[in-house]
Amino acid sequence: MTQIELLREDYEDALRGLVAIPSVSSSDEGGDCRRCAEAAAALIRRFGGEARIIETGGLPGVHGRIRSGSGAPKVVIYNHLDVQPAPVEGWSIPDPFLMEIRDDGTYLGRGTTDDKGPALAALFGAVLAGRAGTPVDVELIWELEEEIGSPSFGPLLDALPAGPRPDVVAVSDTIWVSTNKPAMPYGLRGVLTFYLRLETSSGGPTHSGLTGGLARNPFAEIASLVSQCADARTGAILIPGVYDDVRPLDDEEREGFAASGWSAEAFRTAHRLNSLRSDDPADAMERIWARPTFELHGITGGYEGPGIMTAVPPRAEAKCSMRLVPDQKPERIFELVRTFVAQRNPDVEVVFDAKLEPFLGPRTGRYAEAAAAAVESAFGVRPAFTREGGSIGAVVTMQEKLGAPIVLMGLSLPEHNYHGVDENFSWRQASRGMVMFRGFLGRVAGL
Amino acid sequence: MTQIELLREDYEDALRGLVAIPSVSSSDEGGDCRRCAEAAAALIRRFGGEARIIETGGLPGVHGRIRSGSGAPKVVIYNHLDVQPAPVEGWSIPDPFLMEIRDDGTYLGRGTTDDKGPALAALFGAVLAGRAGTPVDVELIWELEEEIGSPSFGPLLDALPAGPRPDVVAVSDTIWVSTNKPAMPYGLRGVLTFYLRLETSSGGPTHSGLTGGLARNPFAEIASLVSQCADARTGAILIPGVYDDVRPLDDEEREGFAASGWSAEAFRTAHRLNSLRSDDPADAMERIWARPTFELHGITGGYEGPGIMTAVPPRAEAKCSMRLVPDQKPERIFELVRTFVAQRNPDVEVVFDAKLEPFLGPRTGRYAEAAAAAVESAFGVRPAFTREGGSIGAVVTMQEKLGAPIVLMGLSLPEHNYHGVDENFSWRQASRGMVMFRGFLGRVAGL
Repeated sequence: MTQIELLREDYEDALRGLVAIPSVSSSDEGGDCRRCAEAAAALIRRFGGEARIIETGGLPGVHGRIRSGSGAPKVVIYNHLDVQPAPVEGWSIPDPFLMEIRDDGTYLGRGTTDDKGPALAALFGAVLAGRAGTPVDVELIWELEEEIGSPSFGPLLDALPAGPRPDVVAVSDTIWVSTNKPAMPYGLRGVLTFYLRLETSSGGPTHSGLTGGLARNPFAEIASLVSQCADARTGAILIPGVYDDVRPLDDEEREGFAASGWSAEAFRTAHRLNSLRSDDPADAMERIWARPTFELHGITGGYEGPGIMTAVPPRAEAKCSMRLVPDQKPERIFELVRTFVAQRNPDVEVVFDAKLEPFLGPRTGRYAEAAAAAVESAFGVRPAFTREGGSIGAVVTMQEKLGAPIVLMGLSLPEHNYHGVDENFSWRQASRGMVMFRGFLGRVAGL
Repeated sequence: MTQIELLREDYEDALRGLVAIPSVSSSDEGGDCRRCAEAAAALIRRFGGEARIIETGGLPGVHGRIRSGSGAPKVVIYNHLDVQPAPVEGWSIPDPFLMEIRDDGTYLGRGTTDDKGPALAALFGAVLAGRAGTPVDVELIWELEEEIGSPSFGPLLDALPAGPRPDVVAVSDTIWVSTNKPAMPYGLRGVLTFYLRLETSSGGPTHSGLTGGLARNPFAEIASLVSQCADARTGAILIPGVYDDVRPLDDEEREGFAASGWSAEAFRTAHRLNSLRSDDPADAMERIWARPTFELHGITGGYEGPGIMTAVPPRAEAKCSMRLVPDQKPERIFELVRTFVAQRNPDVEVVFDAKLEPFLGPRTGRYAEAAAAAVESAFGVRPAFTREGGSIGAVVTMQEKLGAPIVLMGLSLPEHNYHGVDENFSWRQASRGMVMFRGFLGRVAGL
């Protein structure tokens, strides 16, 4: 039995214990998130580390340390312990928070793959590195507000004990593009959300027989304005200047994407889409990972009941978002939107909602190479450097506040049903993940 | 005391009695509409007419006859006795169904102006004509489903006793454009309602970080399609062929509009609109009375909750209507919409909902002239021949089934708060209305 196999029972007990605490950050019933943080801190201590709860003003975080000597390189590993809600409908186990282990080593339960399983794989990898005397100073940062957008993550980082800046940060909260090909995303999209509002009456809806043709229709004007912002069929953004700061993909990036195992058919099926804007894989991946979007999520203010009420609405509000890519700046993009709207329909108010910077990490250099080598060594396959289309607030915050290179070493697979029913993880990914983290820490120690 | 003044107490008692029966056709609690029909039939009998309840399959109607001799011209007068709901909020009387008479002869209560007051004015006018021995055969058709779109009005007409076709039909259910200028609308807009539907996924909303840029956005595509159907700012319909059958206004019609007393400022204020598509009165009146519209009432399928959920919707449905004008045919317009949509976005389904033909009645000829002379004689002012922008289903049905010229002799004023709180009517309009109907019947008898 290998050193890793000897840890299997400990790992499964630890994961079962964390899954059993329904740390749903969006509701946090009965202080479950704090209980989860405390249980996680106890686990870190049980395996020889130091740990404490960090108060943030919101839900607490956990700060763990596994040190092998002073003056060693400092590595931060980020995970989160809060989970999505899990109504029992659709699950094939009686209770999504009572983890079930299948004979093939599959772990079924909410939080197994997102992100409690990977968090514990990182902990065990660090413990293994410590036991081997690897000269590295590991700090674990476990957040409990990731699923609600990390609103207190800045305060969490600010509340950590003072110390030297880390040499590298590893984040283990991403999904491989395909099952047999490890993926290391080095880029994330940012996001900008805003409202477009128009009020053409201070009263209620008016009778379209009495007013139609002369009364302005704010719903139609907002729909038209959004249609001028982006071509709804192709997705091309029509606001001048929006593409100015988009960093073009280079050949190496395109090669990385092509090696990821991404498939249009798998994507279409996974998301139950009838058709895609593009079936060409290179174009398709660029669209979701490396191009900005302008998305209309809904327009309120019209008639939403059954049938058709033939009234002219008095006001309308579009809910819009733009995914942004390196090197776009949310502030500049918002100004471009405002200028465009002012030109096209000056009566429309553009109301800022939220923003997050896009992220671009290293895909070359010693830390990216150490991570890639660790992944290859653990899984037997060279990882593909890809990007992700989503946004991870904590990554952007760490880049700003920790000032260290960030590598994304995810362990979740497409079939793990991230955020879905029958969320699962496996001993295979967990054990290889431990090997990956142990190997990464060893390589960083040797730099 | 004049002959008319002698009727005042009878009129007020009758109106109070009908208002006291809350004949709200949209709810019809406890059979109120049938009670109202029976009370109205009893009134007709009390004043010397014949009356019976007509069963329609829906809510009943009333058929009354006030005859002065065989072989006389036959005049149908249409009114309705059902009313809009009247929650007490905002009213200055304790109960909208307990009519209050102000010292100045104002009648406050639901249904006073729409349309119980005018119905009784017509009845009393016919009674006066009968007492004077005017050789005319008056049939009163009182509907109880007008406020819900007259769904059983065809069956009501079919259930009337067989007899010669009427010589003329008078409808008293319209509003003057301004207080001191009687208006006789000779045109009504029709309407066509339909849905534009697009489904791009068989699943639920997808995460815009994961799919945005590659997944089609059906909400945005529907918004764009609607924007291609009509210019949201100007209201101009962009679907080829839609204007082909629009009958242009002639100079006499424009003169009639100009004489109506319509004011952009009064219109804007009454509907609490911040601005209008046009401030030129001639253009403005043409827009609401004589031009077709393409109105977007709402799009469902997007995110309608608080904040912005950055999901790509799987489907969207626009609720659309078009007001149509003479000589547009709803069937042809619907085909034009279908053809246009098929060219612009073939994945979008165009789903028919409902239609009503536009109406164009006489504004010259002996019956229009008899009506105008009666109005002028009663009110001391020559009426303006105008159109209305709304649609009255019963008028279209009568035109089809009765085959007689229809004149619209309304008595409601803009300040009567049609459909609103503090709905009111007045002895002034009622008494002059009686004179108007008496005079109209006399003129028809003399033709």
